[in-house]
Amino acid sequence: MLVALDLAGAFIFALTGALVAVRAKMDIVGMLVLATATGIGGGVVRDVLLGEFPPAALRSARYLVCCCLAGLLIFALPRLFEQFGSPIRYLDAVGLGVFAAAGTIKAVHFGTNGFTAVFLGVITAVGGGIIRDLLAGEIPSVLRSDIYAVAAALGSIAIVLTRDAGLIQAGAAVLGAALTIAVRLIAIQRGWQAPRPQRR
Amino acid sequence: MLVALDLAGAFIFALTGALVAVRAKMDIVGMLVLATATGIGGGVVRDVLLGEFPPAALRSARYLVCCCLAGLLIFALPRLFEQFGSPIRYLDAVGLGVFAAAGTIKAVHFGTNGFTAVFLGVITAVGGGIIRDLLAGEIPSVLRSDIYAVAAALGSIAIVLTRDAGLIQAGAAVLGAALTIAVRLIAIQRGWQAPRPQRR
Amino acid sequence: MLVALDLAGAFIFALTGALVAVRAKMDIVGMLVLATATGIGGGVVRDVLLGEFPPAALRSARYLVCCCLAGLLIFALPRLFEQFGSPIRYLDAVGLGVFAAAGTIKAVHFGTNGFTAVFLGVITAVGGGIIRDLLAGEIPSVLRSDIYAVAAALGSIAIVLTRDAGLIQAGAAVLGAALTIAVRLIAIQRGWQAPRPQRR
Repeated sequence: MLVALDLAGAFIFALTGALVAVRAKMDIVGMLVLATATGIGGGVVRDVLLGEFPPAALRSARYLVCCCLAGLLIFALPRLFEQFGSPIRYLDAVGLGVFAAAGTIKAVHFGTNGFTAVFLGVITAVGGGIIRDLLAGEIPSVLRSDIYAVAAALGSIAIVLTRDAGLIQAGAAVLGAALTIAVRLIAIQRGWQAPRPQRR
Repeated sequence: MLVALDLAGAFIFALTGALVAVRAKMDIVGMLVLATATGIGGGVVRDVLLGEFPPAALRSARYLVCCCLAGLLIFALPRLFEQFGSPIRYLDAVGLGVFAAAGTIKAVHFGTNGFTAVFLGVITAVGGGIIRDLLAGEIPSVLRSDIYAVAAALGSIAIVLTRDAGLIQAGAAVLGAALTIAVRLIAIQRGWQAPRPQRR
Repeated sequence: MLVALDLAGAFIFALTGALVAVRAKMDIVGMLVLATATGIGGGVVRDVLLGEFPPAALRSARYLVCCCLAGLLIFALPRLFEQFGSPIRYLDAVGLGVFAAAGTIKAVHFGTNGFTAVFLGVITAVGGGIIRDLLAGEIPSVLRSDIYAVAAALGSIAIVLTRDAGLIQAGAAVLGAALTIAVRLIAIQRGWQAPRPQRR
């Protein structure tokens, strides 16, 4: 069940990677690379920082296969999602919540302090997207618009706090993922932006 | 012999890194950094993902020295290779084949599944070039043109398949490297491109 | 004392990260990400390459808190340092010296060869800045101007040589840091540039 959710998250993220590759006029190689980097990048960076080798996403074939399938789907039907821009963003919110919760729980398991757990939860959730944008020659979108990393951070913080307060782990994980998804969806709905420094 | 081939591959890749640095109007520091990143980047990423520390390229001084010599050579004679653009591309094909085979064999040794072995073989072969292009402010060339990563992937796949079929490892490695080099050279000759998504 | 110096270095580097984020028109998320990446990036890469997990900067909360405070300070007072451009550059030289020395000493401790120790010392000192510039969509400034990485390398080399010559480690570290800081300050003063390849 958890693995299925995690794979679904990777698949959604991989779709966004392949779509960015199409926009950047890349070929099939670029599409597969960006799909894979977006789908597993955040989790791989988390596992490297925690010292787990090989990273979970490389220990079986299923994550790589899943990301490549997403890339091939977009290659075969590059316009499939053009009229569905909005659905993709909503699905992406689910991936964000699942990844932020999974990353935070894993960091807590490894015995890291709360700040590091939140840091690694956010990296798991947004790391793949940052690598995707860098490979496409763009400034990572998460750095300058929208409530995106903030939603991931709120979910991660909720997990750390409720777990310290004694909530069982599965409960904390569901709560954190739900919070991230809810904040992200509302932010899309209402067009919320993260604050910027005041410059006159 | 194997180490000599590997060092030769690193040297050739380092030359391409230093040449990109010249084109991006960098100074000697940028030339040495790009030479080193291109020469050892792919192998370092592979070793980090496999959990081997320090990465093989840092365990002795010879890879660093080899990459810096390549950088200094281009610094001293920046125009030396201008009239030899084509020879460099052919040499680069040799580096590609050697690195793809070395990366795949090492991953298989560490007991990874076949998909991960191919993934790490390709990363070993093209990772340094991706880092080089990112540092030079360019979209990695491997993502949008040419049969380059595809050649590396074909060699890696051949190694995994023939080894599963019982071929001794040295044979599989030579076969894989030769296949990568052959595909790459023919692709340069004939101007083969990887397929792109159809957009009307 | 050493930890205090190291935290001070991270704080200064984090300030430069947040300032680059302001210039790139990022929001609070981008400012915190660039502050953290610049403050701890070099040390994290060094620790990953040495095989120390989690990296020292993630083992306690203080580095993350320190970098986020720097980001929040710039967020609250984005113009505070505008008239102090020059003081920041001088402070940055101190961070450069401290990080180069700390990185080299740590690598030597792990038993690496001298070339690798210098390589890791320089990565510790300039790695955060390279990540910062990549995230901001710029070619890393260290690659094309100024005596910056060169100053770090000279300090690292001095540490390796004097330690091989029998100087106690604390002495070598102070000497190396002082040399890096001195070279960097003089280079700012006199406008020294690293040499470029001659192209006619």
